[in-house]
Amino acid sequence: MPNPSILILPGDGIGPEVMAEVRKIITWFGDKRGLQFDVSEDLVGGAAYDKHGKPLADETMAKAQDVDAVLLGAVGGPAYDNLDFSVKPERGLLRLRKEMDLYSNLRPAQCFDALADFSSLKKDIVAGLDIMIVRELTSGVYFGEPRGIFEEGNERVGINTQRYTESEIERAARSAFELAMRRNKKVCSMEKANVMESGILWREVVTRVSADYPEVELSHMYADNGAMQLVRAPKQFDVILTDNLFGDILSDCAAMLTGSLGMLPSASLGAPMENGRPKALYEPVHGSAPDIAGQGKANPIACILSFAMALRYSFDQGAEADRLEAAVEKVLADGVRTADLLASEGVEPVSTSQMGDAVVAAL
Amino acid sequence: MPNPSILILPGDGIGPEVMAEVRKIITWFGDKRGLQFDVSEDLVGGAAYDKHGKPLADETMAKAQDVDAVLLGAVGGPAYDNLDFSVKPERGLLRLRKEMDLYSNLRPAQCFDALADFSSLKKDIVAGLDIMIVRELTSGVYFGEPRGIFEEGNERVGINTQRYTESEIERAARSAFELAMRRNKKVCSMEKANVMESGILWREVVTRVSADYPEVELSHMYADNGAMQLVRAPKQFDVILTDNLFGDILSDCAAMLTGSLGMLPSASLGAPMENGRPKALYEPVHGSAPDIAGQGKANPIACILSFAMALRYSFDQGAEADRLEAAVEKVLADGVRTADLLASEGVEPVSTSQMGDAVVAAL
Ligand SMILES: CC(C)[C@H](C(=O)O)[C@@H](O)C(=O)O
Ligand SMILES: CC(C)[C@H](C(=O)O)[C@@H](O)C(=O)O
Repeated sequence: MPNPSILILPGDGIGPEVMAEVRKIITWFGDKRGLQFDVSEDLVGGAAYDKHGKPLADETMAKAQDVDAVLLGAVGGPAYDNLDFSVKPERGLLRLRKEMDLYSNLRPAQCFDALADFSSLKKDIVAGLDIMIVRELTSGVYFGEPRGIFEEGNERVGINTQRYTESEIERAARSAFELAMRRNKKVCSMEKANVMESGILWREVVTRVSADYPEVELSHMYADNGAMQLVRAPKQFDVILTDNLFGDILSDCAAMLTGSLGMLPSASLGAPMENGRPKALYEPVHGSAPDIAGQGKANPIACILSFAMALRYSFDQGAEADRLEAAVEKVLADGVRTADLLASEGVEPVSTSQMGDAVVAAL
Repeated sequence: MPNPSILILPGDGIGPEVMAEVRKIITWFGDKRGLQFDVSEDLVGGAAYDKHGKPLADETMAKAQDVDAVLLGAVGGPAYDNLDFSVKPERGLLRLRKEMDLYSNLRPAQCFDALADFSSLKKDIVAGLDIMIVRELTSGVYFGEPRGIFEEGNERVGINTQRYTESEIERAARSAFELAMRRNKKVCSMEKANVMESGILWREVVTRVSADYPEVELSHMYADNGAMQLVRAPKQFDVILTDNLFGDILSDCAAMLTGSLGMLPSASLGAPMENGRPKALYEPVHGSAPDIAGQGKANPIACILSFAMALRYSFDQGAEADRLEAAVEKVLADGVRTADLLASEGVEPVSTSQMGDAVVAAL
């Protein structure tokens, strides 16, 4: 059997820096645990635009369809801010999500014990927090047609379309219920069914799917209240299920609760391929952080933990994923800190590469 | 000259309870400060549905168009959850917003000194917080067409349309810049211009309007980052300008930062009427709170402070608005607390009506 394949797309800003540390981890698993991967690398985002004039070359897209997992760093940066919408770095990422049909975006918001003091929230509100946001990732207002800027009378109008079919809602809901079965058996679905018909259909389909998971407790919340409850009492949640746009906002809100945005990974999963593995792309929740790019200051942990999610969801190596996550926890407990994790403790920050080495050493 | 007119729409749940306290305040200003108002009252939301079979009668709509200010309590409740979308209690409120053309929704998020301990956030992050969210309120995905649930092939699809014209964006932007001129001269505009063309037009128009306010510092932020920054470091903001849907979520998030959702008022303003006053509706940010309705537990302060906003924005009584706000601050400083404001202090909560009386006494 061939080795499982990974396509690395470091992207822009701190993407290449954090990805270099993931490479060390991949090498370690090959050398020490006999987990060999065929690793290739390519361009995405601004880096791809610089070379190809578009944020994702067709050959890269084809490769992404072909591998067992894609690892992505981050896209975008001020150099690309004035590009035309159609070639913006983000379009490369959105094309991957859409064409790979990665409908289920898993975003854990976890508070690491060693970092509980670091949150803006009071410690008792976040300590031990462990929620999973499932964000629908291939539809909604991100992709709905018609869209664009049009002439209307003597002015222009900007239009986007929120659009969800029953089957799109159903498959995202199913993945949330499946996850809840392996967690604390609670799903809270968030929409604006009081204002949007797409939210009414969302609520109806989620309720229907829930009948197949009688052990899971389902609740519904309007997304505005959801944002409020995330700040007020986030531990009330287990799995949160929501659409593409609400998920974008709510997951950033949830991520910040833990005070450790440089720490949070994500997995974007699609339907099973022929080999039984899901189509999959893994990426940190943080962006390309142009302000610190190239300075060796970035925290590679979010990207490293994204690889841990790959071990778990693509390569069926749950125990090895646990091992990697435990190594990260140990490094944090030992007080190793990149600059983003420094409270007022007077600790010297380590560099991106020192953090990667520390995780390897703790494995 | 006739007295200025106010239409009171108490609505559902705790709406009537908190509005009863506002009535005491209005009476006080008439008796003690010679500010006489012609006050009438009518139904909205579930209460209107029960009587008329729809959440806002046409006569009520006509009255609302005719008065100098509308004061609204809250709409909705579990009794109405299964009503058809077109007659849901919320539609009554949305009809008022749309037909009165109340395009600028002002939502202050303020941390009251006496309550800084009450937030989920650490005290230094929220103490002294004073931001103003300006939410566009008459357009966007709340009202865009086409909308509905349609058949498509052998399944259904839920559709809503995000839609903003240049002039809609412009007038909301102008109101944000005007406010910033009277505050700390900073506007942060939030959208998803990296994903939505309507966000691109939004950013372009806001930038154009800003040329008329050279003293105001304008920044742009993606709405997901905005949610994150609100939790991370809310004091970086002065005025936040955003659209209807993002404003719904971000303002709830901001409200919760202060830990005092029962405290926060809002004003929804439209174009000037013949008498020079803006079309205006004032309402607390909180909802109808069915869980505590009818128990005398609700905090009337948000609704009382909404009347203070009416004094300021509709009746040109800034000094009297200050007086009312100072009375609320004094009552809080004296330790008077409704049940929602009790931390672990062992204080006995006062009732809705006792809180109203305390504010009157402090005036
Ligand atoms: C970069 C951007 C297109 C993206 C999104 O809006 O989905 C990002 O914010 C995210 O959450 O992954
Ligand atoms: C009640 C509901 C229609 C309303 C909205 O979504 O605008 C509410 O959440 C608000 O923020 O005023």
